[in-house]
Order: sequence, then C-alpha cells, then structure tokens
Amino acid sequence: MGNDDNTLTRVGEFGLIKRVTQRLPVHDDCLLGPGDDAAVVAASDRRVVACTDVLVEGRHFRRDWSSATDVGHRAAAANLADIVAMGARPTGLLVGMCLPGDLPVEWAEELADGLAAEADLVGVSVVGGDTVSSKELTIAVTALGDLQGRAPVTRSGARIGDIVAVSGRLGWSAAGYTILSRGFRSPGALVAAHRRPEVPYAAGPLAAALGATAMIDVSDGLLSDLGHIAESSHVSINVESKTLEITEAMANAAQAMGVDPLAWVLTGGEDHALAATFPPDVLLGGDWRIIGRVGVGRGVTVDGSAYEGSTGWDHFR
Amino acid sequence: MGNDDNTLTRVGEFGLIKRVTQRLPVHDDCLLGPGDDAAVVAASDRRVVACTDVLVEGRHFRRDWSSATDVGHRAAAANLADIVAMGARPTGLLVGMCLPGDLPVEWAEELADGLAAEADLVGVSVVGGDTVSSKELTIAVTALGDLQGRAPVTRSGARIGDIVAVSGRLGWSAAGYTILSRGFRSPGALVAAHRRPEVPYAAGPLAAALGATAMIDVSDGLLSDLGHIAESSHVSINVESKTLEITEAMANAAQAMGVDPLAWVLTGGEDHALAATFPPDVLLGGDWRIIGRVGVGRGVTVDGSAYEGSTGWDHFR
Repeated sequence: MGNDDNTLTRVGEFGLIKRVTQRLPVHDDCLLGPGDDAAVVAASDRRVVACTDVLVEGRHFRRDWSSATDVGHRAAAANLADIVAMGARPTGLLVGMCLPGDLPVEWAEELADGLAAEADLVGVSVVGGDTVSSKELTIAVTALGDLQGRAPVTRSGARIGDIVAVSGRLGWSAAGYTILSRGFRSPGALVAAHRRPEVPYAAGPLAAALGATAMIDVSDGLLSDLGHIAESSHVSINVESKTLEITEAMANAAQAMGVDPLAWVLTGGEDHALAATFPPDVLLGGDWRIIGRVGVGRGVTVDGSAYEGSTGWDHFR
Repeated sequence: MGNDDNTLTRVGEFGLIKRVTQRLPVHDDCLLGPGDDAAVVAASDRRVVACTDVLVEGRHFRRDWSSATDVGHRAAAANLADIVAMGARPTGLLVGMCLPGDLPVEWAEELADGLAAEADLVGVSVVGGDTVSSKELTIAVTALGDLQGRAPVTRSGARIGDIVAVSGRLGWSAAGYTILSRGFRSPGALVAAHRRPEVPYAAGPLAAALGATAMIDVSDGLLSDLGHIAESSHVSINVESKTLEITEAMANAAQAMGVDPLAWVLTGGEDHALAATFPPDVLLGGDWRIIGRVGVGRGVTVDGSAYEGSTGWDHFR
C-alpha cells in the first residue's frame, strides 16, 4: 500500500481535500457542501441534534485489523447511532481527519469512501470537515440530525414499570475483538461485526414514534449504558439474561476462547445497538425485543442480582 | 501543575466529563446540553451552519507557550470565526478532546474554561462533545450557527469591480509566533494575540447584512485566503499594501527580528480576521476597511504584482 510519491506530505492539504471531496456524494439535506468556511444543512423542524465522537488509532481501531474503509464505516456509525438514539433522523456528517504525513493518500481516500458509504445507508452526506497532519491517526466525526417534530428521547425519562428493549446486535463486536486479539480471523461474521457495526438506524426514530420514554446507543456495553439510563432516570433496571440471544457462532467462539459469551453480550460495546424503555403496554415493532424491566431503586441487575465483573469501558482506565 | 493523584487516568472518563461539564454555562440556543447521546440546538431559520476545525499540540499550539485556557479560547475562536464568515450567528459548540492519560485534570478543566469564555463572547454554549485518551493532545471543535434568514455568504460570489475589505487584525498572531519561536516574550500585545486571537465576530453578520458578495475567515494568511475567494469566484484580486496597517509594535518587533512586517500581514494566519468582497457602492460600517479590488483574470496580486515568497500554510508540507 502506498509509496513515497503518494503520501499526504506529497499531495499536500489542498490536494488531499480535493481528492477526498470528489468521492463524497451530496444528499438533499446538504444545502452547501464541502469547500467553504462552513456547510449549511437543512433543519426543517427548527432544531438540530448534534453529537461528536472521536476515534483514535490503537484505542478504537488498528490498521492491521481494519481497512481504511472499515474505519470510515465505524467512525460514521458511532456518530449516526447517537443521532438515532435521540429518535432523530441523521442529516449530515462533518469529519476532522488528523493524519500522519507519511500516510498513503489511498488510505485517506478509502476512509472517505467508508464514511460516505455508511452515511449513504441513512441517506446523508459528509458536508464538511478539516484535515490536519498529526503523529497519531485520529478521526473526529460530528453528526447532525432532525427530530421531525418529535421530542428528543433522552436518557432521563424511564419510569417505574416500563419495559426495557433492545434493537440490534449485542456482543458481536466484543467477540470479534477477542478473536482478533488472540490472533484468529474467524468466525468471519463476528470479526466483520467488529470491523463494521450494523447499526439498527431505523429503530431509533421508530422507538420515538412508539413512545419510548428513554433511549441510549449501546457503545460502552449494555449494562454500562443501561446504567446511564437508570442513573439519569432515578430508577433501577433488571435484565433477564434468558432473553439475550447468544448465536451459535458466538457460543462456539466463546468455548474455543474459554470465555463466557454472556459477558460479551452484557458488557461489549461498539455494536451500536439501541436500548430503550417503553410504557408497559407498548406494541413493539421492527427488531425491538424486550429484555427487562424498570423498577424502583437504583443500578442495573441481571436476573435480580448484581453482575460480577467489569461492566464497560472507561477511556482513561 | 498537577500530580499523580489528579491525572485523567485517576479520575477516569466519567469523572472528567462531570468536572468539565459543571464548568460550562448553558445559553438560550442550547435546548438539550451535555449528558445525553446528542445535544439539541435551536435552528430557527430551518437551516444550520456547521464547521469542524481540529487543533493538534505541536502544530497549532504548544503547552509551554500557551495556557490551557489560551488553547480553549483558540480552539473555540477558530471555529466560531468560520461560522461568522458565512454571515451566520453562532449557536453552539461541540468539543472532542483527545487527552493523554497523564494530563492533570486541571489542564482539561482550564481548557473547558477557555472554550466556554470564548463561546460566551458570542453568547453560546458548549453543548456536547467526547473525551478519549490519546498520546497526542488534540482538540476537535465543531461550531453551529444560524443564518437568521439570510443567504450564506460563500467564497464564490465575488464580482469584477467589487471592493475587497477586511475586519480584524492581520499579522498579529504571526508576529507573536515569530517572537515566541525566537525565545522572546514581548511585545506582550503580539504574543497575547498569538495565544488568543481577537475575532471580529460581529463583523460577519454585519457584512452579510451590508450585502457582502463573498467572505472568508483569514486562517491560512490573507493572500492565501483571498486566493480561495479568487479561485472560487473566477476573478482576480489586487491588494493595495498601503491600506494595510502595520502597528508600531509590529514594526519595532520586525526590525528587531530582521523580518519584513508586511510578510506577517500578508501571509500570517490565525488572527481569524474576516476578508470579504462588497459591491463598489457599499457603505461599510463597523471595523470593515477597504484593502483592494476584484478584477478580471485569476490569482491575487499586491500593488499589481505577484507577491514573492510563501503565501500561506499547508498542513502536510
């Protein structure tokens, strides 16, 4: 990959920006795209939802495990998932790329391809960004979204008696990470899930329309993220472990690695599933499935007991 | 500053987020602030202006030259300047902080103080963000803005015969940089200008209201940034050097350093002045002052001739 004639240092900042922006499709919500001091994006309901998530090489991805396109998919997915977790429809992405000068231009181009392809899944564009040279490869993405007239679904609205439900995969990315870190490359479905999460994008606005009382993107791990809902809502949450799916591939991989697959499902982040609470009489649709219930008190339990072991990820520990 | 008991590794990600968000005031445009998956910001004219700018330690700032508060001011200013350069009013900031684990918590808190204080100058808040651990200290800021019913002022609208005007300082930051890089600390006004730019925030929306045909934030250097307007608008621009102010402090510092102060003014970035083109019959207000004219052809000249020497900054060269 790459040679000295085709590094970022060779093509320069403006050459890179030109090559990257050429690859980015423009969707309807983008009223003014890359190339000016700032972008202009539609915000039809007079509010805009916005979030920022940063991926750092070695912490969030490894170039020997993931292609540039994979990294682009993940960086976009991590942010788009936060937007849909508010019940909003994504409307655009901005991308700050901090790239080493000796990086091949193709890597940056493929990163842009991955970002654009993931954004395409929800019909939005990369509307702007910044490129700077750095020692550490870092991708800072901001996503914007439209609430379509609905109230945002926050973490603080869960009520005692609500049901707890999830949409999307749990534990797949963590399983893939364990497999890769032990030097293996299969089962392919789990490894692929670590490289590129499959975010249940439609489930966020659907949950809002169904009356979800609280919602969160599962990025730190199910128990850790349900803990954020419990804390913000001043309630407790109990998860029934028998409702959580452990696929055959996951069970086999866990056995081969000598680990408990339930730990992946309960504490693995980065699949960007959605977890939400709903009134007990809700008629769920889509991929939403009930996994527990909101109660009095505080904290998160599994089958009525505290879960033994680490519940999630802290970036400075 | 700091000791081992008070590093980011010690307080952890959630401890850091709590300590930082406590310091951030909340303004009217912020409908839902930090603490959820995403923020919600007012966008009253059904469009949102958005931009991202990344600052990397060693490239954009040095901890031995600038305090954490200074870095916060600069990171916010770089982005807010891009918003006003579209003719928009800023409405919020999001901040991705990539911080080494051994950084004292106070540094991160003072960074937040600087971000909040700069945002306060335009009445907006830090509405959200992300904190991750990294080797390299990197601050990725996204700013949002409101066009208040006006069309965005892009780089591409300059017309032959238009006047060219600037608002804000030119060359001050570059002079301060040269002074600091030679090991000096005075004149204080120039060093301070490098540490914290004074952005003419009100001049952006004012220019839009006055009918500016094109506008840009001077972040790479006056000639380089006017070059972007000339290229996007398919015109040439000539700058009259006699219209450019060289302060006494700048002239004295330049003499002491053995450099041409006009080079600072023409090619120094990071003061975040605004440059704009206006119809020739415009009645300028505020700090806007005429420095040149738009003509046929392409490129940027100074007093009718090509400028000798480097015209600006390329991040990968």
